[in-house]
Amino acid sequence: MKIALDAMGGDRAPEATVHGAVWAARDFGLTIQLVGHPGVIEAELVKHSAHGLDLPIIPANEVVEMNEPPAAAVKSKKDSSMVVAIRAVKAGKSDAFVTAGNSGGALAAALFGLGRIKGIKRPALSTIFPTNAERGYCFLLDVGANTDVRPEHLLQFALMGCHYARRVLRIPNPRVGLLSTGEEEDKGNTLIQAATPLLKAGRLNFIGNVEGKDVPAGLADVIVTDGFTGNVYLKGAEGVARMIQDRLEREIKARPLARLGALLARGALRALRTTLDYREFGGVPLLGVNGVVIVAHGRSDAYAIRNAIRVARQTAEEGLVQAIESGLGGG
Amino acid sequence: MKIALDAMGGDRAPEATVHGAVWAARDFGLTIQLVGHPGVIEAELVKHSAHGLDLPIIPANEVVEMNEPPAAAVKSKKDSSMVVAIRAVKAGKSDAFVTAGNSGGALAAALFGLGRIKGIKRPALSTIFPTNAERGYCFLLDVGANTDVRPEHLLQFALMGCHYARRVLRIPNPRVGLLSTGEEEDKGNTLIQAATPLLKAGRLNFIGNVEGKDVPAGLADVIVTDGFTGNVYLKGAEGVARMIQDRLEREIKARPLARLGALLARGALRALRTTLDYREFGGVPLLGVNGVVIVAHGRSDAYAIRNAIRVARQTAEEGLVQAIESGLGGG
Repeated sequence: MKIALDAMGGDRAPEATVHGAVWAARDFGLTIQLVGHPGVIEAELVKHSAHGLDLPIIPANEVVEMNEPPAAAVKSKKDSSMVVAIRAVKAGKSDAFVTAGNSGGALAAALFGLGRIKGIKRPALSTIFPTNAERGYCFLLDVGANTDVRPEHLLQFALMGCHYARRVLRIPNPRVGLLSTGEEEDKGNTLIQAATPLLKAGRLNFIGNVEGKDVPAGLADVIVTDGFTGNVYLKGAEGVARMIQDRLEREIKARPLARLGALLARGALRALRTTLDYREFGGVPLLGVNGVVIVAHGRSDAYAIRNAIRVARQTAEEGLVQAIESGLGGG
Repeated sequence: MKIALDAMGGDRAPEATVHGAVWAARDFGLTIQLVGHPGVIEAELVKHSAHGLDLPIIPANEVVEMNEPPAAAVKSKKDSSMVVAIRAVKAGKSDAFVTAGNSGGALAAALFGLGRIKGIKRPALSTIFPTNAERGYCFLLDVGANTDVRPEHLLQFALMGCHYARRVLRIPNPRVGLLSTGEEEDKGNTLIQAATPLLKAGRLNFIGNVEGKDVPAGLADVIVTDGFTGNVYLKGAEGVARMIQDRLEREIKARPLARLGALLARGALRALRTTLDYREFGGVPLLGVNGVVIVAHGRSDAYAIRNAIRVARQTAEEGLVQAIESGLGGG
């Protein structure tokens, strides 16, 4: 299996990307195609003992920067690592694409270069969200690809999310929840009220509408929302987690005894950070585009990149794109 | 000044409500009108030394329950504590109304009984949200009164929020942010894109669009959003905070040394809880209705009720309703 990695994408590229590629090639025995400036990539590769690993370079001399307007950048930068990598996926030279770069850019490049899966109206960005339930996480989508959606789009997000949850996250019968302002069907806005009957009628394990507090409580495995609400929700959660950690640190620093206490409790504090850590999952799929595209966090380090490559392999092996297409046709 | 308190409203009523009323009457020298079943209230009052305090009872023999459909409950229960208290405000017998009961019920009762401030199209539910900035909090609205809004409603939420921030929260020139998926004006959904120019043109210290993570970071003093997004956002933040606290507790309990550490750091942990605590603020206004209505958290204890009464007094003293009305007329 060959996986194209955007060597230039992410806050810590190319150090973290090339390091992560070496790591993944060694751990998983995959071919990792490093897409980007050959000189830059080679300068990183020599830092590692990559002997015997299959790490070919696919040259690409431009980069879609993190804060560029995605669609315009992708259209004008035909030789960017993202556009070149997507072209390799389209041509069948790569089985999947992984990037920690501009996620809007990845979406635009995938839409232009691969198009949508037949029958899918809108692709969706997803995320793994931590929960307090036994499994420890749920799958949330859309988190930003579509800021204005129609009820039938939410149904498709639910169907795609279930395919991913079953095949890649190994959740046998994922419970689906629609994010709303209350469980009752008369709660929510007009979009939610129109979408609820569609999800009830769909071939889904739909548990009903869930509130904002039910997501971290782990009430559902797949949480469906529009990309505006999902984006605001996800960034809000990240901000609240950071605020709490910062405040706790500040309160501890202000007290000598607490500083000693934190030292004794450092295993627990570290375990808390790990459970809230995006790095274990590495990346999440761009669902609905006609190919495997895995988006990693912009802050990804080498370990996160390695794990994103693992997710890409699994998503390609499990035939997720084909499953979504035939799932729509068949049901 | 006379403040009508819903003695029957909230998870801990009537114990916490009556206790909070006694506390507020003593601390602030106010008349607190206890609205509810006289027998129930009297049985609570005798537990306190309320000698010399002005705590008249306004009889009301029904209760709008926490999970009742608000509009229907308020229409059918004419003798409920909420409806009776709102009637007292309307008749000028009370200067403000405080409740820890069903907030949708408070909204419905206020809309039916008091109506909207002249010129205001939609009332809004608000909240105090903790931040990492120096002030430690911001003011967020709407958090649930209006799940479908138009751009001009968001402008009015911003104007009302600023009046409250200036007069009651004592923030001289509140920075207003519109909750969106990015700072750029082409981000957000169609509602946000239509509202942004209105807020820019309004007589506001509008700092632009803010992301979900910017709210806890304290980038703005008044955050404006629609009631669907605001409700999902707020409940999500509460859920994430609870998840983090639960996980930290679990990790500490699993480690003997960490348990000792937590004991040494208990001052810091307590300080963290206090900064995230809704009780200090007590309650938040229902903005846009033609009278002072303060909604306290359903879980309010006596201290939170006392503080909600303080907020009600200040809101009435500062003439917030008149300020909003003339602010709209004047500009």
